[in-house]
Amino acid sequence: MIGRFITFEGPDGAGKTSVLTALVPRLKALAQVPLIETREPGGNPISEAIRQIILDPKNTAMDPRTEALLYTAARRQHIIEKIRPALAANKLVLCDRFVDSSLAYQGAGREIGVAEVAQMNLFATEALQPDLTLYLDVPSEVGLARISAHRPDQNDRLDQEALSFHQKVRGEYLQLAKDNPQRIKVIDATQAIEQVIAACQTLVTASFPEMFRG
Amino acid sequence: MIGRFITFEGPDGAGKTSVLTALVPRLKALAQVPLIETREPGGNPISEAIRQIILDPKNTAMDPRTEALLYTAARRQHIIEKIRPALAANKLVLCDRFVDSSLAYQGAGREIGVAEVAQMNLFATEALQPDLTLYLDVPSEVGLARISAHRPDQNDRLDQEALSFHQKVRGEYLQLAKDNPQRIKVIDATQAIEQVIAACQTLVTASFPEMFRG
Ligand SMILES: Nc1ncnc2c1ncn2[C@@H]1O[C@H](COP(=O)(O)OP(=O)(O)OP(=O)(O)O)[C@@H](O)[C@H]1O
Ligand SMILES: Nc1ncnc2c1ncn2[C@@H]1O[C@H](COP(=O)(O)OP(=O)(O)OP(=O)(O)O)[C@@H](O)[C@H]1O
Ligand SMILES: [Mg+2]
Ligand SMILES: [Mg+2]
Repeated sequence: MIGRFITFEGPDGAGKTSVLTALVPRLKALAQVPLIETREPGGNPISEAIRQIILDPKNTAMDPRTEALLYTAARRQHIIEKIRPALAANKLVLCDRFVDSSLAYQGAGREIGVAEVAQMNLFATEALQPDLTLYLDVPSEVGLARISAHRPDQNDRLDQEALSFHQKVRGEYLQLAKDNPQRIKVIDATQAIEQVIAACQTLVTASFPEMFRG
Repeated sequence: MIGRFITFEGPDGAGKTSVLTALVPRLKALAQVPLIETREPGGNPISEAIRQIILDPKNTAMDPRTEALLYTAARRQHIIEKIRPALAANKLVLCDRFVDSSLAYQGAGREIGVAEVAQMNLFATEALQPDLTLYLDVPSEVGLARISAHRPDQNDRLDQEALSFHQKVRGEYLQLAKDNPQRIKVIDATQAIEQVIAACQTLVTASFPEMFRG
């Protein structure tokens, strides 16, 4: 793999999608190589069909490990059809969520166990790892409040079960950042979004100066 | 788990399904506990939906590891919805194919690697293993000839690629039997089917005498 693989991680409502939307055109203007933006399931028919099974509201009986295996199957196909070919073509690949999301949500949040989910994902990734991960950190209350602010039809009171789930997710993200300080950079995503975008831009261009115009 | 979990393995055309069809009523007549027969994907809606993605002829781009993850996701849901509850209720569970099929077909046949497929399946099984596996052994030519005998419309000449694939599958089954002599019993399935059924019946009743009438 000769390109660069950059992932964006963080709890719901941290701002991953908003930041990427603003960041991608700015990085494209500076990059010396082609840049692609992607997110799981990645737009291929197999991963999309898998995602439909996960999201089908009829499938309430789905076991957490079945769900984790399905996310990983969709990830595998996304790697094979999009991420690996782009990296092999020396592109910059920016991806909204990757394996760390499974570790935080399925491993910690759903309590399958982080080590087990990590091991199982190795089967899918064959050890492909992001070169850089930007972790947008927000307290769970802030992330959930941001999301519910855009759903005024729903009850604004935070569901206590949802809150404790999201706290486990955030706790695991922070642990991953502690365990992988070279790869994972923590960004305070409670800042104004323009600050968050600027911090991300600086981290990407400074991490791979050879890929960007001075 | 207090029941007994018995799997039937072997290459295509070995006779697993034919043998089970004859064996199940005979064992039911002798068993002191309820007996269920099942096969992957196991009849639950989630596993059936997963199987449809695997079998969809449109999905020619499916990577072998994606396929292996999908088989394992379907297996997980089958374990949770059917196998585990039956074992917990002290039933005898007879299952047409299980993890050994993934090791032989995906691990060896498709050359993903047996150890990697085994490790990944541990995520789904949480170490649930058959108490007894009846491996119906036939040379690849015999199994494939039995199957093509029932498809007179197709070319009878054995496809050389298919033959070498099936030889890898059989080789792995034999290796598994060698490595797990307590669990896996090898039955010569080139014998007349009545002999194969009788051999299976003897092995099951002798392995679990407490479950059957003298
Ligand atoms: N720094 C910020 N300050 C205030 N609001 C923000 C900030 N970043 C994002 N938001 C707002 O929070 C909401 C959620 O943002 P966004 O959808 O980008 O988050 P996300 O991390 O992609 O969430 P999800 O994991 O659910 O996809 C949006 O309404 C967005 O405008
Ligand atoms: N011992 C036997 N001798 C001769 N023919 C047999 C024997 N066992 C099975 N057959 C025949 O071989 C064919 C394949 O058998 P069967 O479908 O039971 O195999 P299988 O192991 O279930 O195969 P698959 O893996 O494709 O499901 C059938 O036509 C069956 O009648
Ligand atoms: Mg988003
Ligand atoms: Mg069969």
